[in-house]
Amino acid sequence: MIKGLSKEQVAMVQHIKLLKQQAGSHSPSLFTIKEQLPALKMGIDACFLSNPYATDLFLDYFKKELLGEDLAIRDMLEFYPSQNNVIASSLASFLKVPAEMLFVGNGAIEIIQAVIHNFTNQKIIVNIPTFSSYYEFIKPGVSIVFNKLKKEEEYKLNVQDLLKLVHLEKPDTVVLINPNNPNGGYITKAEIAELLEGLKNVGTILLDESFIHFAFENDQMDPLSYVDMVLKYPNVVTIKSMSKDFGIAGIRAGYAIMHPNRIKQLLSNGFLWNSNGLAEYFFKLYTREQFQKEYEVVRKQYIRDTQEYFKILNEIDAIKQYPSQANFALLELKSGILADDFAFGLLVKSGVYTRTCSDKIGLDGEFIRLASRSAIENKEIITAIKDAL
Amino acid sequence: MIKGLSKEQVAMVQHIKLLKQQAGSHSPSLFTIKEQLPALKMGIDACFLSNPYATDLFLDYFKKELLGEDLAIRDMLEFYPSQNNVIASSLASFLKVPAEMLFVGNGAIEIIQAVIHNFTNQKIIVNIPTFSSYYEFIKPGVSIVFNKLKKEEEYKLNVQDLLKLVHLEKPDTVVLINPNNPNGGYITKAEIAELLEGLKNVGTILLDESFIHFAFENDQMDPLSYVDMVLKYPNVVTIKSMSKDFGIAGIRAGYAIMHPNRIKQLLSNGFLWNSNGLAEYFFKLYTREQFQKEYEVVRKQYIRDTQEYFKILNEIDAIKQYPSQANFALLELKSGILADDFAFGLLVKSGVYTRTCSDKIGLDGEFIRLASRSAIENKEIITAIKDAL
Repeated sequence: MIKGLSKEQVAMVQHIKLLKQQAGSHSPSLFTIKEQLPALKMGIDACFLSNPYATDLFLDYFKKELLGEDLAIRDMLEFYPSQNNVIASSLASFLKVPAEMLFVGNGAIEIIQAVIHNFTNQKIIVNIPTFSSYYEFIKPGVSIVFNKLKKEEEYKLNVQDLLKLVHLEKPDTVVLINPNNPNGGYITKAEIAELLEGLKNVGTILLDESFIHFAFENDQMDPLSYVDMVLKYPNVVTIKSMSKDFGIAGIRAGYAIMHPNRIKQLLSNGFLWNSNGLAEYFFKLYTREQFQKEYEVVRKQYIRDTQEYFKILNEIDAIKQYPSQANFALLELKSGILADDFAFGLLVKSGVYTRTCSDKIGLDGEFIRLASRSAIENKEIITAIKDAL
Repeated sequence: MIKGLSKEQVAMVQHIKLLKQQAGSHSPSLFTIKEQLPALKMGIDACFLSNPYATDLFLDYFKKELLGEDLAIRDMLEFYPSQNNVIASSLASFLKVPAEMLFVGNGAIEIIQAVIHNFTNQKIIVNIPTFSSYYEFIKPGVSIVFNKLKKEEEYKLNVQDLLKLVHLEKPDTVVLINPNNPNGGYITKAEIAELLEGLKNVGTILLDESFIHFAFENDQMDPLSYVDMVLKYPNVVTIKSMSKDFGIAGIRAGYAIMHPNRIKQLLSNGFLWNSNGLAEYFFKLYTREQFQKEYEVVRKQYIRDTQEYFKILNEIDAIKQYPSQANFALLELKSGILADDFAFGLLVKSGVYTRTCSDKIGLDGEFIRLASRSAIENKEIITAIKDAL
């Protein structure tokens, strides 16, 4: 337990541990915890991996364009959203990707599910620690091979190790998440190129770039490269969540870029009206130059704030921070305290909710994952952590 | 063609016919048509099968509760929705169904897809004419047997015919849609009881009740019966869209009641965060007594208006109206005009969009499907139809 908890607070920690057990590999949301523990101080959700400045930006447009006199949102609530290919068409020219290569999902998670259910039939290689759905979503009969990232290499993907394992195991699917969750480990463009070339005989490469907007390799994003990539490597499926970078997880919006034949297969027996009215509105916004210009400002602001936050976290002796090029950091607790005790203790004491990694396979030690929030909240998070240690 | 179209209007009809061809078994939305034909007069969407009074009711709550000073909708946009089982729990006591028997979908269509992909492995029997997804969503290798409803029986389901066909064909799945779309044909409670008893050896019975709130058999709905039914017939999966009765198709909300083992199977490898923030809000509203009371008023008002509308339509000589206990009617054009010509001609001439049934298999003749809208719009629709004939 962390220092300075009252008896009542210790009991609350125990209660949250139970909720965590029930929730399995997806921690209970702050709302769920709050419902069960009304006495809990609601503070900062540092489990939640999104850019809060981008949420503000979206809300500005939402208020201005949908909540005006004519309440334009009415149409979005009343009528069916457009079909997948219609929304894909509206995204296509902005992304400079043919509509036939774009699949729109009810969040990236729906696409992950669709791809794994449809294209993974024998064996999948997943680098761990990572986002558990990639191996939890497999169909019965599919085998999983874990490529355990090495603690001594700070859980960074080792390209040669992975290529060797693929050569040995001959999977039909390999998952690459860049940056990886929960550690933020980044695969450089040069490494991605080497991997794709080395993996070109694998049936499906899932390249999840849900956190790529937060990577600091360069300031520019280059959507053109995806078309080149899929033309050169038709086995690649690139998946992109909108929840994190645009701060709109509640809307459920994501897309994927993949070979047209795969999309034809997916749409041949499903995925009707799988978007919703607000997601369709968001995607229209997303393709507008003015919105993108304003988004680019808040993206960079958030990256700068995150780097500042990481710098201060790095100076705290009792935790080791692993290298991250995402909007969160994996922290190892060196003081002997268990991750659940720390995370839930911090929540009941300071109202700061961090993600325990006690359920993550592939981590040796006690870890939490800490999101970057707004600059003001980040300061409060740091104060709370220092206070708890 | 209908009478009195200008050359430009005839060209517009031809253009819409092309869009219809591209759209296959799901007609292009009025938005899509409008985007391509900006000169089109936007009038009434009588393709769209929902209660407009219920949309108004939802909007009242939406404005009052989500768009107030604190803009409570922000949380719904920013944060992930709850998981399936959490939303199911909040619905359970209202529906008097255990949470383990409730599956929440991104619209009923996601549930139809999930059920057919997971539980239909050999042969499916579908009564036609009907909603095409039921046979379009089958996996490769599954065979379809159509039970063609008889025109001379006004496309009403004949229980004995279906039972005989099932006996002969031994399918693993039978689809029952009540009331049926596109004709509104109703299966009485006594007939449902007879069918479920006769079909108890079939693997899966899909009972789609998406339009049941509009059936006039009685004024009360009785959710208790579903639990009894699934306890007695564990092969039944009841599917319920919220889009039609509550007028919120853009939100994407639906649920299903089925045996807990089926839900366990579905959730074991997918369906994370498959709802969205607004759908979760709607479901909370749905369980509130005051909302249900107000909903019941607008449901009955809409049924009364629909019955009045049907009565007037029935008096038009050039069309035959088939018996419907839903919020739409199947109309046969007796004057020799093609369904597409009539539907698209009516749209360009009067701005009234009706659903051509030219793509529907199982109909012999020229048919359109006409939705009931508000009382005022229904009058305009009737005027437009009389004018066109």
